[in-house]
Amino acid sequence: MDTTPEQARREAELTSRVLESFAACQDPHLRLLMQALTRHLHAFIREVRLSEDELYAAIEFLTGAGRITDDERQEFVLLSDVLGASMQTITVNDRAVGAATEATVLGPFRTERAPEIELGGDISGGASGMPCWVEGSVTDVQGGAVPHARIEVWEADDQGCYDVQYADDRVAGRACMTADDAGRYRFWALKPTPYPIPDDGPVGMMLRAVGRSPVRAPHLHFMVTAPGHRRLVTHIFVEGADQLGSGDSVFGVRDSLVKAFEDQPGGTPTPDCRDLGGQPWTRTRFDIVLAPEG
Amino acid sequence: MDTTPEQARREAELTSRVLESFAACQDPHLRLLMQALTRHLHAFIREVRLSEDELYAAIEFLTGAGRITDDERQEFVLLSDVLGASMQTITVNDRAVGAATEATVLGPFRTERAPEIELGGDISGGASGMPCWVEGSVTDVQGGAVPHARIEVWEADDQGCYDVQYADDRVAGRACMTADDAGRYRFWALKPTPYPIPDDGPVGMMLRAVGRSPVRAPHLHFMVTAPGHRRLVTHIFVEGADQLGSGDSVFGVRDSLVKAFEDQPGGTPTPDCRDLGGQPWTRTRFDIVLAPEG
Repeated sequence: MDTTPEQARREAELTSRVLESFAACQDPHLRLLMQALTRHLHAFIREVRLSEDELYAAIEFLTGAGRITDDERQEFVLLSDVLGASMQTITVNDRAVGAATEATVLGPFRTERAPEIELGGDISGGASGMPCWVEGSVTDVQGGAVPHARIEVWEADDQGCYDVQYADDRVAGRACMTADDAGRYRFWALKPTPYPIPDDGPVGMMLRAVGRSPVRAPHLHFMVTAPGHRRLVTHIFVEGADQLGSGDSVFGVRDSLVKAFEDQPGGTPTPDCRDLGGQPWTRTRFDIVLAPEG
Repeated sequence: MDTTPEQARREAELTSRVLESFAACQDPHLRLLMQALTRHLHAFIREVRLSEDELYAAIEFLTGAGRITDDERQEFVLLSDVLGASMQTITVNDRAVGAATEATVLGPFRTERAPEIELGGDISGGASGMPCWVEGSVTDVQGGAVPHARIEVWEADDQGCYDVQYADDRVAGRACMTADDAGRYRFWALKPTPYPIPDDGPVGMMLRAVGRSPVRAPHLHFMVTAPGHRRLVTHIFVEGADQLGSGDSVFGVRDSLVKAFEDQPGGTPTPDCRDLGGQPWTRTRFDIVLAPEG
């Protein structure tokens, strides 16, 4: 956008004054944050030549997001998610270390109620969906086994609901387990299916206005911890799903986290000889690599 | 901040995916706005290496702003104001044209209730403060008189209150008038005094955290309209006040809008021979230059 030198001077002077207003901040890190926020916010306004009506529309949007937010519904988290701000924050803090497994968003559905299961146990707790055998190993970035890592997993049922969204108090679709001496783990879960984030508020309206879907790519959550290693919060995604790449509404997908799920016809023998009564099932493998702590 | 090439690739790829998610937007200007917002937001997060706790704190801040906002209180406007976003938006839309008077923020206190006064009349409506004679001219950027411009003015009393903040329904500290054939105007007002923006919410908490004052530089609001000319919304500020430059909490001050107010001892004859009962008064001059329309 062409501006005259005088116009450019006025715009730059205003930004300088706002930056200067934070100069007396006693907390140097807070000062850095506020000054950087100011620089980027002003650069955005200048670049797009924001109109006053657009500024008011943005303020109305935030006001609407505030109105729908309560103890159960957090529209500002959704906003951060659909703008990729949540995932960018995860990414800058999940420093790339060799082959360490990439992190993704925690999401709002983790609870403290995951029951303990044996290796090979079933996390579904009666939730509906196609049985899914998951197995893999936990190693460090040198390839050495990490024995006894704690693995917590959780997921939605095939209607797109986590247990906390059920009308009753049932615990389903979540569990904790401990990997074996050689860092191996295995369990039965449900094949992940796509589901939408809440889209009946301002964020949903925005997604419709820009032609985006609220649907999340089908995924299974993992949280993996082991002494001396960085805590890993991640998902695995179903290869071939429609919402991979830029199609996941919160941008949680990393290509390295997309896994083949090999669907098996009914009657195919299961790895642990479990009798599934002739129903089809699927299987996947997720080898986890933990970064060192710090 | 040093990042490895792989780390930088992951961060950039994420931003690309978010940008790509807006590609299907049918409204090209909305697409431009959302993609620019994404670029600047992600650049901020990457530059400051935003921590997850800081992101949560920002979400909590917005949630608190939403909670305090209602039909009377607009915390998101205050936030836009104290970050200079409101004033930067004004500035990009108030294209510099020759000597045309600079615009500043409208503020929340303009109403439709300004009474009509004759030139030389008193806008105070009984509000308290030091009487202040204001006079000037309205010209175009070629220096030609703009006859019969409509001039609306409004201000707080010397307790920092606008009439809409009074407990009763009184109209005070505001008026409309029409400049004469030669574009001249004059009226009695009150000498402006500093006052704080509302600071009992999240925005006030933020200002305290960074060592900033909520006080606005003392000012008198003007809205000036004339056919064929761009509407001017501005203030004049009192020279020598403590809150000029970067000290005004909403960054409304432009150096060109700072005017000398010449205080007069009690008993000094007034320009229109008005009898002020021996009290001190002040005077200022504001020559208004209107830009052409469009």
